[in-house]
Amino acid sequence: MPATTMDQLVSLCKRRGFIFQSGDIYGGLQGVYDFGPLGVELKNNLKAAWWRSMVYERDDIEGLDSSILTLRTVLVYSGHEDTFTDPLVDCKKCKNRMRADQIVDGKCPQCGSTDLTEPRDFNLMFKTNVGPVASETSTAYLRPETAQGIFTQFKNVVDSTGRRAPFGIAQIGKSFRNEITPRNFIFRVREFEQMELEFFVPPKDDEKWHEFWKNERLKWWKEQGLKEENIKIVAVAPEDLAHYSKATYDLYYNFPIGYEELEGVANRRDYDLGNHTKGQKDLELQAHVHPNKDSTSKLALFDDETKKWYVPFVIEPSAGVERGVLAVLTEAYTEEELPNGETRIVLKLKKHLSPIKVAVIPLKRNQPEIVKMAHDIKASLLKTGIGRIALEDSGNVGKAYRRHDEVGTPFCVTVDFESIEQSPATVTVRDRDTMQQERVKVEDLPEYFKRAFL
Amino acid sequence: MPATTMDQLVSLCKRRGFIFQSGDIYGGLQGVYDFGPLGVELKNNLKAAWWRSMVYERDDIEGLDSSILTLRTVLVYSGHEDTFTDPLVDCKKCKNRMRADQIVDGKCPQCGSTDLTEPRDFNLMFKTNVGPVASETSTAYLRPETAQGIFTQFKNVVDSTGRRAPFGIAQIGKSFRNEITPRNFIFRVREFEQMELEFFVPPKDDEKWHEFWKNERLKWWKEQGLKEENIKIVAVAPEDLAHYSKATYDLYYNFPIGYEELEGVANRRDYDLGNHTKGQKDLELQAHVHPNKDSTSKLALFDDETKKWYVPFVIEPSAGVERGVLAVLTEAYTEEELPNGETRIVLKLKKHLSPIKVAVIPLKRNQPEIVKMAHDIKASLLKTGIGRIALEDSGNVGKAYRRHDEVGTPFCVTVDFESIEQSPATVTVRDRDTMQQERVKVEDLPEYFKRAFL
Repeated sequence: MPATTMDQLVSLCKRRGFIFQSGDIYGGLQGVYDFGPLGVELKNNLKAAWWRSMVYERDDIEGLDSSILTLRTVLVYSGHEDTFTDPLVDCKKCKNRMRADQIVDGKCPQCGSTDLTEPRDFNLMFKTNVGPVASETSTAYLRPETAQGIFTQFKNVVDSTGRRAPFGIAQIGKSFRNEITPRNFIFRVREFEQMELEFFVPPKDDEKWHEFWKNERLKWWKEQGLKEENIKIVAVAPEDLAHYSKATYDLYYNFPIGYEELEGVANRRDYDLGNHTKGQKDLELQAHVHPNKDSTSKLALFDDETKKWYVPFVIEPSAGVERGVLAVLTEAYTEEELPNGETRIVLKLKKHLSPIKVAVIPLKRNQPEIVKMAHDIKASLLKTGIGRIALEDSGNVGKAYRRHDEVGTPFCVTVDFESIEQSPATVTVRDRDTMQQERVKVEDLPEYFKRAFL
Repeated sequence: MPATTMDQLVSLCKRRGFIFQSGDIYGGLQGVYDFGPLGVELKNNLKAAWWRSMVYERDDIEGLDSSILTLRTVLVYSGHEDTFTDPLVDCKKCKNRMRADQIVDGKCPQCGSTDLTEPRDFNLMFKTNVGPVASETSTAYLRPETAQGIFTQFKNVVDSTGRRAPFGIAQIGKSFRNEITPRNFIFRVREFEQMELEFFVPPKDDEKWHEFWKNERLKWWKEQGLKEENIKIVAVAPEDLAHYSKATYDLYYNFPIGYEELEGVANRRDYDLGNHTKGQKDLELQAHVHPNKDSTSKLALFDDETKKWYVPFVIEPSAGVERGVLAVLTEAYTEEELPNGETRIVLKLKKHLSPIKVAVIPLKRNQPEIVKMAHDIKASLLKTGIGRIALEDSGNVGKAYRRHDEVGTPFCVTVDFESIEQSPATVTVRDRDTMQQERVKVEDLPEYFKRAFL
């Protein structure tokens, strides 16, 4: 188990500008968070790594960015309006409303009364109205998962790209769930981002691809710095499977709150495309679907060998971005005792995830030549495209090192008096993890860091 | 005026996978769009260019990513709950509800009746409920602008970064407005993305910085490929200013529907921080603000010279991502007559915005050596970090060129029989704009394209 506690992470995240409570100055909006200057970079880097591994490095995946506002019809046919619910109970005495599983010994946890209603289903989707009239027909939902946008655009993607199975559609975006009891910092929240791949395969190949994606996802999380010993893969028991799933693997990570789900890899069969397609009867669907009278599109592929249309099965690796951020922070957070007896906090993030790649520190902020050289170095490093380069002109090198250890900056470059006196000019490069410093020629810095960030 | 019509763009966008109607298979959700495989890349590239120019290249701007769900209190004090409205009129005969300015000669445009209600204010914010009980106290809004997340996190950002004015906070993210009559493709939509900078300055310097940002934004849009002759900058007339604004410049672009707003650069004074701060009376606010009894934070900066706290003024360049996408597509769309009399459609996008940077085309898709070389080239080009590289194995080079002209791919690399026979191996590189082809050594390709995309 990592030594990290949730309190350590929450404290670091607020102090250093990773994550703040939304609406903080008004007491906060529960279960909703804002990403600060460093958090947004970390999150963007994690998302970019996922997108790159899915859409850029493979030849069989297309990207998509569908809307958050979702037509009610989509979520009726997906099954969410009926089944995406938690059972809620009201206390008749104090009017507390709670999840059925939160009742303690048959009593309301707030007032202790046993006069409770029967559980009723409470839908977890956020509802709103689109257009000038608020009515049943103008109801829309905030999507509870990005997946439905992929399924409903299946035909448009196939038509515009000419794809055939196996192929996938990848999406990163916000989803919303009206959790009754959001908790554990950014682990269970009401507004979150998902990284979802829907990978469409011939039905006979589903189990092979299910294994493939389980393994790929494990490999990817390890590339983000998670140790294999902190990951558990669990095949979900048949009785616990979601209604659409033939089989699901859950990837659990060893968070400060214990092992919890980081990603699910589900075999959704032909359930989703089957629910949203027209002409269901002609398609030999294997999942049990709802009759659909509204769809205008056949969501199927043509099999050149059998000369028949078929609905592909879909394998879905679905990860939460906030949970990913929490996992890499948990893994990276380190308190080290130094030889001088002091303790340093250091975020040992993988370099490609670090919010700031290099901090350039002028030793004196009122020495124009030193400051100018620092600016020039920043500009030359930006051109390498490795990411955010910070100019750190607090004028206190020791403090700057401490700050950049805490936020996971892999390298600090210090411009000192030697730098402007020598020819060729050199600077000090300090490594976050080893704290070793070496002198590097200024002209060599771009190549030096390009190699370091390969 | 660009020769492009909206119909040409809509058609290209659907055919080639840039933009689809949300919920298309169920008749569509009006005013809401999904970005397809190429649209998501174009949009991400535009956003990345903005983020880079704001957060990476400057030393005085921090990033932020705040939530979409917004505490009602925030939008009460910002003034949105009271004033973010359109006047609506109901037709008593046919029950049509319309904006007051859409009434034709005092008659309902739907049924012609003159029996209409008086106009009433209709709030454009999407409303929902957070938590298990739907009531007034659980009301939350989808943010109508990303700016309020910046203002309410002002203190957390200052505390975690140590910033002093002038400095800015930049954000890219979705906002939502319940437009009564969304129209003109992605120009006026209900769900959209904004790129907003709030740049905080000492009150005495506001006009200088307002000019500065107007000029910077014009320069940036030109770097995205918009011709200056298609941009008009208009100082908003005093009587048309938003209630919070001291002065605003609107940047208009020559869309296919005529000159319309692409970006606004507003001087919002101390209105927003002043509305959200505690201790308003001690801060000598210049804007007229609402008394605030709920805020727990002083949103002010300490002036080292006067030894007093003050609320900075804010200059806000605020651009719509969808409108940006529409503008660069308008500018890039070209129909060219070729010497052989045929017409080609080519998207002359700036290279950094192109969804696909290089298409690698094996001349024969059943020739393993050719296919392998194409794969290897793709892998080597991906490592340069220039962006998405497509492997285009349709097996028809002519069609591939046509397709990649239409989606704006700057270069096509064709691997042919010569490529696998010669040593050192060479390939054909075709330029999108000139259609010129040249033979380049395979080993030189990474450097060749790194230079081309600098």
